[in-house]
Amino acid sequence: MGSDSTIKTMDERPIGVFDSGIGGLTVLKELALQFPQENFLYLGDTARLPYGSKSPQTIRKYCEQNIEHLKNQNVKAIIIACNSASAQFSEIQYAGLPIYNVIKPGSQRALEVTQNLRIGILGTRATIQSQAYTNTIQALNPNAQIFNQECPLFVPLAEEGWDNDPITNLIVFRYLSRLLEKNIDTLVMGCTHYPILKNSIARSTGSSVELVDSGEAIAAWLQEDFISQRLSPRVSETPRNIEIRTTDFSEHFSQLAVRILNPVRASSFGVVDI
Amino acid sequence: MGSDSTIKTMDERPIGVFDSGIGGLTVLKELALQFPQENFLYLGDTARLPYGSKSPQTIRKYCEQNIEHLKNQNVKAIIIACNSASAQFSEIQYAGLPIYNVIKPGSQRALEVTQNLRIGILGTRATIQSQAYTNTIQALNPNAQIFNQECPLFVPLAEEGWDNDPITNLIVFRYLSRLLEKNIDTLVMGCTHYPILKNSIARSTGSSVELVDSGEAIAAWLQEDFISQRLSPRVSETPRNIEIRTTDFSEHFSQLAVRILNPVRASSFGVVDI
Repeated sequence: MGSDSTIKTMDERPIGVFDSGIGGLTVLKELALQFPQENFLYLGDTARLPYGSKSPQTIRKYCEQNIEHLKNQNVKAIIIACNSASAQFSEIQYAGLPIYNVIKPGSQRALEVTQNLRIGILGTRATIQSQAYTNTIQALNPNAQIFNQECPLFVPLAEEGWDNDPITNLIVFRYLSRLLEKNIDTLVMGCTHYPILKNSIARSTGSSVELVDSGEAIAAWLQEDFISQRLSPRVSETPRNIEIRTTDFSEHFSQLAVRILNPVRASSFGVVDI
Repeated sequence: MGSDSTIKTMDERPIGVFDSGIGGLTVLKELALQFPQENFLYLGDTARLPYGSKSPQTIRKYCEQNIEHLKNQNVKAIIIACNSASAQFSEIQYAGLPIYNVIKPGSQRALEVTQNLRIGILGTRATIQSQAYTNTIQALNPNAQIFNQECPLFVPLAEEGWDNDPITNLIVFRYLSRLLEKNIDTLVMGCTHYPILKNSIARSTGSSVELVDSGEAIAAWLQEDFISQRLSPRVSETPRNIEIRTTDFSEHFSQLAVRILNPVRASSFGVVDI
């Protein structure tokens, strides 16, 4: 065993992804499109959502429990696809597994695309008040100017399924108008739900503002780690598997999950108690 | 002691009111206006909101803890000013105290005002799916026809402070249009947040539909219980006290609380750990 280098660098195990609910599915979708060979196991902690209003200690505890569950399912890496959780869990290695959060890749991507160093951040009240993006971006480049905007209605609009909707366009425009006056050229969608509303957001910003999507940013990081062999890819002729688990059953969640993931298709849906 | 009947039927203790967050303040406001002599103690369990997405067992446990906290503060009665909690806690007497929930008074009031027995119910997804209003109203009058509408955006709109707002008017009209086609003549605002949006709701319904407000309905029940002496009133020359406590601090909550209660003024705001 181990004499064939092709076998040595292959890893059939799924990549674990977790979020408090459905928002992380936008990240899963990007990863599934980018890495069509990889297996994925998604955990949506719907019984305990939202994380945003919980204390840092509680969020941290939930993260550890989610990681423990995914580790027991034999994943090879874990993506924390939730901004509130990412703000409390910055380790890049934990319980023997590579860990990825959404804030660092999104922050780095924002600095890569900005030309005028004026960056807008959209987020939930909890994420904006944590200053996680401001601190992370300014640690990388102290000259960056950050303009924050809380968008408390975006998550319920996304969960209601009102994307590509005139009412959503009006609400997006109202939230964004103050940021756009600041002459930003880059806008971070700092909540994994927000890419569901990407069309409406792009309609307000126009083409002069670059949108940063956490899912795309993390996919680029994973790609680098596959190249550097921090992660080993799955290489197989058999179809890959995308398994979705939630901690509470909801018919509404399942229907919405199918819409968000489209054109990616989940292999199975299930409920777990963690 | 006890020989003077005026003293015997007086009770200085506050009336306790609890909710998972700020919605119950609409109930507190109605009660405070209706009973200007009474002291009130409001508990908003903001650290654990929302209740709507929790399991019945968990909601029940939180209710018991909230009641225990209020009982230790020596209240004379407890109002459960939250529909999700009311659906799980139907006792009228508990831990030696009179308990009031919002569903029964709202249901009874709806039957008092309807002429055609066609009643609409607005609520959160959890409240509508629990069928609490449908079951309660039809137990009182099996001929009543109930038309339910989930309004998941109403709570975030109310919490964002977008009452009397053209965007809110559009959203209200969209949710209500299906109900209005059913020829209802009565509409229950089945979530204690919704009276914050009452102006927008009334604009959609017009004057041919009667709106039922939980706070007003409970105030009428309390009035009856003061008359029947199930409850004893406070009679005093000194100003009454309205104390508001939450389980998590939030500047946003305090500001919103002042707006919702207006013209009623709280005597104090505080944070408690329960």
